Amino acid sequence: MIQTGLMMEQPLLLSEVIEHAATQYGDVEIVSRETHGPLFRYTYADCAKRARKLAHALDQLGLSAGSAVGSIAWNNHRHLEVYYAVSGSGLVMHTCNPRLHPQQLVYVINHAEDEVVLFDATFAPLVKGIAAHCPKVKAWVCLADATNTPAIEGLAHVLNYEDLIAPHSEHYEWPAFDERSAAALCYTSGTTGDPKGALYSHRAIVLNALVLCTPAVLALSSRDAVLPVVPMFHINAWCIPYGAPMAGAKLVLPGPRLDGASLYELMESECVTVSAGVPTIWLSLIQHLEAHKLRFTTMRRTAVGGSAMPQSLIAKFADEYGVEVRHGWGMTETTAVATMTSLAGKHDALSPADRDAIVARQGKAVFGTQIKIVDENGRTLPRDGTAQGELMVRGHWILARYFKGESSPLQDGWFPTGDVARIDADGVMQIRDRSKDVIKTGGEWISSIDLENAAVAHPAVAMAAVIGVKHPKWDERPLLFIVRKPGQALEKNEILAFLTERVAKWWVPDDVVFLESLPVGGTGKVQKSDLRKQYGGVFC
Amino acid sequence: MIQTGLMMEQPLLLSEVIEHAATQYGDVEIVSRETHGPLFRYTYADCAKRARKLAHALDQLGLSAGSAVGSIAWNNHRHLEVYYAVSGSGLVMHTCNPRLHPQQLVYVINHAEDEVVLFDATFAPLVKGIAAHCPKVKAWVCLADATNTPAIEGLAHVLNYEDLIAPHSEHYEWPAFDERSAAALCYTSGTTGDPKGALYSHRAIVLNALVLCTPAVLALSSRDAVLPVVPMFHINAWCIPYGAPMAGAKLVLPGPRLDGASLYELMESECVTVSAGVPTIWLSLIQHLEAHKLRFTTMRRTAVGGSAMPQSLIAKFADEYGVEVRHGWGMTETTAVATMTSLAGKHDALSPADRDAIVARQGKAVFGTQIKIVDENGRTLPRDGTAQGELMVRGHWILARYFKGESSPLQDGWFPTGDVARIDADGVMQIRDRSKDVIKTGGEWISSIDLENAAVAHPAVAMAAVIGVKHPKWDERPLLFIVRKPGQALEKNEILAFLTERVAKWWVPDDVVFLESLPVGGTGKVQKSDLRKQYGGVFC
Repeated sequence: MIQTGLMMEQPLLLSEVIEHAATQYGDVEIVSRETHGPLFRYTYADCAKRARKLAHALDQLGLSAGSAVGSIAWNNHRHLEVYYAVSGSGLVMHTCNPRLHPQQLVYVINHAEDEVVLFDATFAPLVKGIAAHCPKVKAWVCLADATNTPAIEGLAHVLNYEDLIAPHSEHYEWPAFDERSAAALCYTSGTTGDPKGALYSHRAIVLNALVLCTPAVLALSSRDAVLPVVPMFHINAWCIPYGAPMAGAKLVLPGPRLDGASLYELMESECVTVSAGVPTIWLSLIQHLEAHKLRFTTMRRTAVGGSAMPQSLIAKFADEYGVEVRHGWGMTETTAVATMTSLAGKHDALSPADRDAIVARQGKAVFGTQIKIVDENGRTLPRDGTAQGELMVRGHWILARYFKGESSPLQDGWFPTGDVARIDADGVMQIRDRSKDVIKTGGEWISSIDLENAAVAHPAVAMAAVIGVKHPKWDERPLLFIVRKPGQALEKNEILAFLTERVAKWWVPDDVVFLESLPVGGTGKVQKSDLRKQYGGVFC
Repeated sequence: MIQTGLMMEQPLLLSEVIEHAATQYGDVEIVSRETHGPLFRYTYADCAKRARKLAHALDQLGLSAGSAVGSIAWNNHRHLEVYYAVSGSGLVMHTCNPRLHPQQLVYVINHAEDEVVLFDATFAPLVKGIAAHCPKVKAWVCLADATNTPAIEGLAHVLNYEDLIAPHSEHYEWPAFDERSAAALCYTSGTTGDPKGALYSHRAIVLNALVLCTPAVLALSSRDAVLPVVPMFHINAWCIPYGAPMAGAKLVLPGPRLDGASLYELMESECVTVSAGVPTIWLSLIQHLEAHKLRFTTMRRTAVGGSAMPQSLIAKFADEYGVEVRHGWGMTETTAVATMTSLAGKHDALSPADRDAIVARQGKAVFGTQIKIVDENGRTLPRDGTAQGELMVRGHWILARYFKGESSPLQDGWFPTGDVARIDADGVMQIRDRSKDVIKTGGEWISSIDLENAAVAHPAVAMAAVIGVKHPKWDERPLLFIVRKPGQALEKNEILAFLTERVAKWWVPDDVVFLESLPVGGTGKVQKSDLRKQYGGVFC
């Protein structure tokens, strides 16, 4: 019989994270943009005190044990307190994406059985529209003081956060329970069918946050100031709200102001060293810097995920602005980061372009996860950088079942991601496409992502998207959508000529459509399904 | 009822660590000094293959399930393979300290019930002396090939490692089991009474190794080359053999050559960036650099623990040689590191001396541990940098019971360390002394460590030790032992005058004894018990 070790048995709980920050990094600052405008600043010690007060308040609201508490909120300090108070006291933090269609929002609040919903004043109109359809919600709490809490027509009793927590003690005994208990709940955006919920355990989040702090991922330390642009309603903001307190990093929360100018100003004024977000955010930030001839003073690295970052944009950050790009991959079903590219010493001798090409891939499986690619029959494909197949993932923070799901989505213990990828001999994975976005033409595959990246490298292109369009002879052929940069007069022949020099001849799109903007979904991703509906008919 | 999260359930096992290294960092090098002299180099992929071969070989030796396997070995690549093969296959890695008295070595091997013992050729004479007294050991394996395996008189059948693993497959299915299972066993040096065993779980080691990789501790990454001087027979070499593969750091193992010249040469030739060891090692390294006017080329930081590093030595490393010192604290009962000092951004504006003074303390509780100090009645003392009491520790990798121990050493769930410490408002802990080394004089306490640090700051002093000697009036008074640097003619009055300027008047020792060397125990620490036996009588 295997012997049992003789170590203390303590569960990995989120309450340990906030108490660690309060005890070891009590004077480290959190700077937060209030929804009504001004900057608010306090410390981890203060944050922990207010989280404990909220935990008392939640207890007093008489919620069912283990029930869910919803949030519809920006990245700000009250949302952070809610994260810890809810999960720490054994309840489930259900972060709602305000960009969901109101019907979907009603669906997820009811499906999660949220008993309390906390929201930022920005979303009062949204709450007004949905509240009547959410019968299980006992209390709607505006994340503000009385002055900044708007009246909501039809809702007799809107609480405000400050009055809710004010009467309570700043001392609270966090309960101890099984680390596999649910801490948080996040729904997929549900582009096909109803949103599905991923129910994260305390253990999964603590382990992911620890790995987030390591140099292989974000290298968070008490010398850093971290600004997560990735929303706290989107996959736990990639666990940065957990990793930053663990590391004692200053946390800078941008609230509702996510435009390039506001982000740049905050990064500079708060000496931000690390950030994280989707490529579109970095695009608008770089455009702001270029337009105003600005430079970063303290920014050193940024995590990018959600969709692939084009190599041209990586080159701008890394080679022109000196900001290292850490390109990662994860999904709602993986708690946060599952793979991450960071350059090793052996890459130092490469040219900038060759280094950027490595960063343009999504990286290695971080410690705690494993990846593989499989063919249509589930057979593992080689790690040769050429073979491509569906990406499968498993690990300590990967979903095993959906919330209230009837059947397991796993295949032989692996989660099938729906992404098509390659893995090279170094273990570096590259997402080639979503399975459903791959363009199948004449028995071969074209990666819509590769085509888009090639297109956005053109100086006149702001955004690009490619879909497959039915074709009588070739099965599918690529159709390219372009949003021009302001004042640019790019035409079809010019962009096709540009692409011809950069991709295989049979990859060159059959047509180009110029749009004012691309349709964007709840998580900030281009909605190719919308493009397909309108343009996906048949090429003639 | 609290909800259960819906994440995959995977145990945290050491087999995941070596397989992560083999898969993600397969081409990263391990460089190892062979016991017979030459350097050996291979990769994590190779190491994992050989660990799997050894796992087969161990299976074939017919060990009882969960039994212990002993090692008496230097830091080298075979010892590393043994670490993973033994723990990974569900056996217990018992690292024996060859500096223990042979009787103690026999005691720990029999107490652990080791069924196999693997040893480096250096220790063949030791094995010869003890083998007959270890009846449960079925096989003695020399960590060498046939050529370098010495015959041992009286031992008919000494196996050699290379022949043992050669016939076996490099594929092995690591078993899955409860992460709380025992992975490793290490005994205290037993200066009072028999050595006591700490039985580490897989979970404890994996969590500690993860924290080791974070910037708050050693910031290990695939850009680093790590040379652990701390022996693999001493508290898991502070978990560096686990953290380095997790991070994909190059591992440089110095074998038996631990003198300043050999270490310096290896650090330079292998581009070492990070090291770890006890202060005496760094003292001899610095003496070598000073004597030969050498500089470090790639060394960036080093972890120091085991005993307090004098501020004068920290200043040499940090301010003269540009090597950041990370001063930590841990003990056999804490798996590895429990506290660590690393400087925060707010310390950048301090003078070098003020920064060094912070580093001279043992640092903050790292994530996963908590510390407090208590008075003689177990009451928690304030974190004011002044109050001092016994240091108590708890956390995910802190011992709950000793191996085969009958009673729990814990007090209210905390492990009493036997160290006297202060904690300041920043959470930074400073070891003041071992409880038993504190000098109690006239109702006040004198820290022997503080006095020793003050004495070694004198340029003619190589080493210093202070003990309390019984005194008819004051209860105890300090007696100072000095080892002079070669060629120095320091006298009693001179060192006492030096101390008078640096410590409170009543701290100045009553007498000074000059010795050629200090008695050193199995773990390299000065044995004050020996000094007390000889000199601890009564001051007149």
